[in-house]
This record gives sequence, C-alpha cells and structure tokens, in this order.
Amino acid sequence: MGRNAVRTIAPALYLIPSLLGEIPVEQVLPQYNRDLIIGIRHFIVEDVRTARRFLKQVEGSIDIEQLTFYTLNKHTKPDELAGMLVPLEQGEPMGVISEAGCPAVADPGSDVVAIAQRKGLRVVPLVGPSSIILALMGSGFNGQSFAFNGYLPIEQEERIKALKKLEWKVYNEDQTQIFMETPYRNGKMIADILKACKPQTRLCIASGLTTPDEYIRTLTIKQWKEQIPELGKVPSIFLIYK
Amino acid sequence: MGRNAVRTIAPALYLIPSLLGEIPVEQVLPQYNRDLIIGIRHFIVEDVRTARRFLKQVEGSIDIEQLTFYTLNKHTKPDELAGMLVPLEQGEPMGVISEAGCPAVADPGSDVVAIAQRKGLRVVPLVGPSSIILALMGSGFNGQSFAFNGYLPIEQEERIKALKKLEWKVYNEDQTQIFMETPYRNGKMIADILKACKPQTRLCIASGLTTPDEYIRTLTIKQWKEQIPELGKVPSIFLIYK
Repeated sequence: MGRNAVRTIAPALYLIPSLLGEIPVEQVLPQYNRDLIIGIRHFIVEDVRTARRFLKQVEGSIDIEQLTFYTLNKHTKPDELAGMLVPLEQGEPMGVISEAGCPAVADPGSDVVAIAQRKGLRVVPLVGPSSIILALMGSGFNGQSFAFNGYLPIEQEERIKALKKLEWKVYNEDQTQIFMETPYRNGKMIADILKACKPQTRLCIASGLTTPDEYIRTLTIKQWKEQIPELGKVPSIFLIYK
Repeated sequence: MGRNAVRTIAPALYLIPSLLGEIPVEQVLPQYNRDLIIGIRHFIVEDVRTARRFLKQVEGSIDIEQLTFYTLNKHTKPDELAGMLVPLEQGEPMGVISEAGCPAVADPGSDVVAIAQRKGLRVVPLVGPSSIILALMGSGFNGQSFAFNGYLPIEQEERIKALKKLEWKVYNEDQTQIFMETPYRNGKMIADILKACKPQTRLCIASGLTTPDEYIRTLTIKQWKEQIPELGKVPSIFLIYK
C-alpha cells in the first residue's frame, strides 16, 4: 500500500469530533482521525456546508463530490434516522460529524448512535475537543463527580430556580455543575448566576476554548461581582462549585 | 528558528492528557501537544516513572534528565501543592500529567489547578482522550444531560442503594449516569448493576477505550442478563439510561 493510499477502514460508525473555532486541525485532532476520515465516504452531519468545510480543513485533497451526506438535526424524523445506517449495514464505514466538538455530547447524534447500538453495529468514538471536559479540567473544580446540564431555562424566574437547584447539588452532593448558554445571552447568564448564587460559591467561566481568545477563570461570586466580564458573543461554558 | 528547535512556550499550567493504553501517541493526541510538551521543563505528575515513559513516547529525543518532576497524589499535603507552582510564578511553563486520560477529571490534579486559579495564573487544558466522554459518545445515551459519579461504594448493600439512586435520576431527571470501577472488580460491578436496575433500563459497558480491544455495547438490563460479558481486568466505564 502506498504512503498516501486510502486505507480500508473497518466498517463502524465513527464519531468524529470537529473544531471549536477557527484553528488549525492539528491543534486539537489526532493524526489518526485524518487517516480514518479519508477512508470514509458516507457522513451523517448536522449541517452539510460546515461538514464539507471541516473535511476540507482535515485534508485538502478530499474529493467532496465523491461523498454522500445525510443530514441529522432536530427536524430529522425517527424513521429517516434508521435508514441512514443502511451503508454501514452493507459493510461501509460511516462517520458522524457535529457542528462543534464531540458528536452526541451536547449535540445531536446520540439518536443515530442508539440505533446503531440497537442493531448491534460497531460504534467507534474518536478523540477530539470537548468544551465540557476542557472547561472542567481548567476550572480546578471536583472532577470525581460532575454533571453537565445543557441549557438552562430562558425565562428569568425559572432560570434562577434552576441555578439554585444546581447550587444545592454543589453543596449537598459535592458535584460540580456545568451548563451552557447561546453566546448572545452570555451577559444575561452571568447576571443571573451572580443574582442566584451564594457569595462564597465559585464560578468558572470558560470562553473561546482552544482558540487564541481562550479565557478560563475561576473566582467566587463575590469576586466576580467586582469585575463583571464582557464575554461578547464567544461560545462559553459555565461551572459552579463550592 | 530551526524546524526542530524548541519553541518558547507562554508561561501557563498546561494540563496534558496521557494515553489510556498501549497505543501510538498520534492515535489520541494532537501534534500540538507534542510541540508544547518539548518546551516544558517542569512537570507535576501522579507517578514519575509512568510520566517519564509517557514523555519518551511523545518524543523520543526528550532529555528526561533535564526535567524536574513534582509528585502529586493523594499523599501530597496542601502546603506542598502551592510550592509546586513557584516555577510558573517565575515565568516558566509547567505541565500536569495524570496516570491515564485527562488530568483533573476522575484523577488528581484539580487541587493544583484550583491553586493556580486562585493565584491568577493562566491554565491551559489540552485535548486528549477522556474515557468518560468517549464512553458517552459511544453509548447512544442522553448527551445533553449527564453526570459522572466516580467510584461507587464497595460494600454491596450500599452499592445497590447508590445504583438505585442513580437509576432514580435517570428516570426523574432524564440524566445519563456514568460511573467506574477498579478493573479487578468489573465482574462484581456488572452483577450488582444487573441486580439493582430495572429490566428495561439500558446499560452501556465501555471497556478498553482507544485500544485494539475496545468494546462499547449498549443493551437493556434484561438483555445483559442473557449474555453476561467477561471483561477481565480491562479498565471499564459503565453508563445507565432509560
């Protein structure tokens, strides 16, 4: 086999992490991921346009026209999902790519993985950037017990209630609580956390992870109140702990 | 600067993931990690011997004798911890390496990160294999809400109680529950899960992640009872969901 020849890849559903921002691929993805990706012709993706762009970043010589894309998002119907796996059932390796970070974690993808598991098909998760794990590592908070809670309610009263419930778990279950917000509501989220939580509770804000603007800072609620950060519209993760 | 010259690395506490098994470095670590590692001379590590071996795997030409190692494990006293960061405070980049996977996640390391955060020192988490995230990706379970619970109690009655409490959270909080066990107790753990959980609850067993023996399988408790797996002493992660 030639040095640049495409390897024959074992049939499996490969879960392929993508980038968290405009950064070089080799900063956050192992070389191995590229070697697998160039052997895959069927991709289940959240958005075809960004998936194509990602694949081109991974390997400029990929002939996108030779690839087949299946769109998986919140509009995809359950019966469409099962149909997507036909190539894999016929022995073709397939890939799942989400918009940012790890497929099936805080992102669509888990439904199609569940179907693959039900059908007894092999599933292979690949290593890549998870903003949740990176934020947890950088926070200094309890990494022996932690929970990711996705998005909190938007309505303020309900959100304050949700934050207080998470803070209760911090103190009563000794569990780090992680959550996120759509970037344009970062400011609102910080204001609500500062309002809901005790002064001595610690808040870690992890913003723009893996990018040149990466910002990971842990302070108490009391300290944050004296220096409220301006995150702008950068994707951010929030963590609280005692 | 020559091609192989060591770059000057910005002073920060770099959190450096290590391997989950005997596999090539480029399978699970980005090239970028190596480029940073060769610029670091001070390492906080769980075990000096395995850290040296890991560094040699990352880059064979590293001169281990030129490096300084600080041991961080459960025997390390809090006042020793703060002292470890002196080189960083003097402008030297430092690295934290744990025994397997991501430092400060289900592993020591978070204490020293917390001190760095308190002192306002920059913390930079690097991408690498997290068995928790890989297992979650491969499980097909809810990735919008999940909790990692570390090790469960060893004593059977308490463990069954803990498992029932986690299963309660699955159904009442719609949250994937993740936990682990020391490899030589895998069989006992599986027996206890099958005993504690409802027949319709789904259990994912993720074993030997990233290694050639990787095994990730999701079945209901009822199905597992008909085909109890023999994991041997391979590091495994367990996940339950509805």
